[in-house]
Amino acid sequence: MHFENYDNARLQNQLSGGRFTVSYFLDVDSEAKAKELATNICTEQTVEFPVHLLPKGDIPSQILGQVESFAAKDGGYHVTISYAEELVGGEFTQLLNVIFGNISILPGIKVTAVGLTDTLLNISRGPRFGIDGLRRLIGVKDRPLLATALKPVGLASTDLAEVAYCCAENGIDIIKDDHGLANQVFAPYKERVRLCSEAVAKANARTGGNTLYVPNITTTADKLKDNALYAKEVGAGGVMVAPGLVGLHAMKALAEDDDIGLPVIAHPAFSGSLTINPQGIACDVLFGLLNRLCGADVAIIPNFGGRFSLSRQQCSNVATSGKAPLAPLKETMLAPAGGMSFDKIPEMIDTYGNNFVILIGGGLFDKSSNLAQNCREFLHLVEKEQRKAS
Amino acid sequence: MHFENYDNARLQNQLSGGRFTVSYFLDVDSEAKAKELATNICTEQTVEFPVHLLPKGDIPSQILGQVESFAAKDGGYHVTISYAEELVGGEFTQLLNVIFGNISILPGIKVTAVGLTDTLLNISRGPRFGIDGLRRLIGVKDRPLLATALKPVGLASTDLAEVAYCCAENGIDIIKDDHGLANQVFAPYKERVRLCSEAVAKANARTGGNTLYVPNITTTADKLKDNALYAKEVGAGGVMVAPGLVGLHAMKALAEDDDIGLPVIAHPAFSGSLTINPQGIACDVLFGLLNRLCGADVAIIPNFGGRFSLSRQQCSNVATSGKAPLAPLKETMLAPAGGMSFDKIPEMIDTYGNNFVILIGGGLFDKSSNLAQNCREFLHLVEKEQRKAS
Repeated sequence: MHFENYDNARLQNQLSGGRFTVSYFLDVDSEAKAKELATNICTEQTVEFPVHLLPKGDIPSQILGQVESFAAKDGGYHVTISYAEELVGGEFTQLLNVIFGNISILPGIKVTAVGLTDTLLNISRGPRFGIDGLRRLIGVKDRPLLATALKPVGLASTDLAEVAYCCAENGIDIIKDDHGLANQVFAPYKERVRLCSEAVAKANARTGGNTLYVPNITTTADKLKDNALYAKEVGAGGVMVAPGLVGLHAMKALAEDDDIGLPVIAHPAFSGSLTINPQGIACDVLFGLLNRLCGADVAIIPNFGGRFSLSRQQCSNVATSGKAPLAPLKETMLAPAGGMSFDKIPEMIDTYGNNFVILIGGGLFDKSSNLAQNCREFLHLVEKEQRKAS
Repeated sequence: MHFENYDNARLQNQLSGGRFTVSYFLDVDSEAKAKELATNICTEQTVEFPVHLLPKGDIPSQILGQVESFAAKDGGYHVTISYAEELVGGEFTQLLNVIFGNISILPGIKVTAVGLTDTLLNISRGPRFGIDGLRRLIGVKDRPLLATALKPVGLASTDLAEVAYCCAENGIDIIKDDHGLANQVFAPYKERVRLCSEAVAKANARTGGNTLYVPNITTTADKLKDNALYAKEVGAGGVMVAPGLVGLHAMKALAEDDDIGLPVIAHPAFSGSLTINPQGIACDVLFGLLNRLCGADVAIIPNFGGRFSLSRQQCSNVATSGKAPLAPLKETMLAPAGGMSFDKIPEMIDTYGNNFVILIGGGLFDKSSNLAQNCREFLHLVEKEQRKAS
């Protein structure tokens, strides 16, 4: 098979010359192996075909991935590979596929950075609100935002709404469903979302505040948009979705849908294996850049020092990635979480500054048996620490 | 917060007592750590709340996960945890979330088995055709099925259709798009799928055979069903999708959609990190059970001995999982692939028997410059080896 009739001129007209880059860390023990692996990535992520059989011309010279840089560092090898932007065909799923599709099955590779062209940035609308928009919605200018989660699963919708009311009345900015609240019989989706939205609206009317209730809308493909539209209909202040469960592209579709138009919170459930293992995607790329490309106004990540396993540096990198200059995309606000408690607030502000969401779930309930007082103390502490930080 | 008004009787009426199980391998170095981790999983995957604050009664006794067995083995600990089936609320996304949502962010955990109740099996329709149905469609009773992939990306639709025609005319049973063919300008989705479908139909008319052309329909949420419907409209023989990119639930929706009604091939792109790392989901659960629950008639996996990294035992486990008794679900046929060549056929038949798909991509083109002859030799070899095996 030599593709004798292959028309090279045709292909030339279809290639802009624009290339995007993906940087990979290769965890192999010799330069020869690293170079071989880099070459394999160039093939695997593009033509996936014996190179000597490719028709001469633009397929090997442009469509095949190209090694742009190569350096020994950090006990392995850093390589940057460029790809023709036309490989993506305007689809986010195919962008992910070129970045890390087949090579997700190969050991020793970690995606450490992605450099997009303007054409590729334009396939994403990014966060609809961004950090500034979210602050305007809530009416909080400078300090970190306060968030908590409604739980445990098993409570009735009325119980959850009562908790939501109490938190909204006492200074919490964002009240989200626990990601384990779906459409269980205990507190069915529609009933829960209606009652909690009403409870938070009632508290807002009383306080003059703008607390957002953000239900977990994560569900299957046939119902995802319906869940989001229902949340909007009953006055929810945003939607939370787990892109690991529904797919990043599905979160992107929700975020970009003008029928919905609500802030989007990304939850990390089922995404962890992609980033906590030696092989996979660095957490700032996954939880920062990719969430941002897919429209997350807020990205929940497992904070350092809690129940999970990211380091302080990794968490800080995610925060930076969410806020890095990436015109025309707005910024994604980080919400570090997972076993957070009041005593961790100073260190969090020390790490992230004032421009993030402090999400305390169980720890807010555990502080004392008086939830209202716990909420007020949470706000007081953040205001006190924020002043110190500024 | 003591949930003083919590109504335990209400909850009792909502719990059937039915529990499903998830088995985890815990890679920790002491029994004490393993027991602590097992207890944490019980909480993390359900209430995600301080246990001492739970209202007494059915939440701690039934909704909280329960350790069913615990054993030191394989240099770590095997634990089986049961969960109330009501936690799932009938949604596949939530089933995944209970199995491995938040704990996907914890190191040292691997899902090794899932034991579903009848209620939970009933949320899946499973493969529409199954192995028997697929064999009937193709008209091949006993031997392994022959498959190849159209590539490289960069070729025009007419070139790809020519390759498809040649393969169909010369004995290949399933001709799928390379998973890197999406909607690029080189061979746009609709044009390619129409031309390749027509080419294979023409070859079938000539040979009297029933080769299936299976386009890669992987795309973003807004277009996925449209891609599948278009494939059906122009006479494609199936659809291929990468659940790692679109979400397992989205593949399930496609497979269960009677408007589509075509065989579904699952491609492993972007799923690898979940299963090739020490932490994650065992490949027989991911590529076998979960693909099957989500309607894959064929599951492509990276075969042992090729470019990828699964062992022969792991691959064999996936094949077993796809065919294990799981009424009322039909069977999923394995398609081991990735750097396969003619010389690997005997070992593949030795491993998988006759009931699988031999997928040779680049290797089919590389055998000689006469593609038609390569296809015929592929068929001849498989028929010869199959006779030996039976």
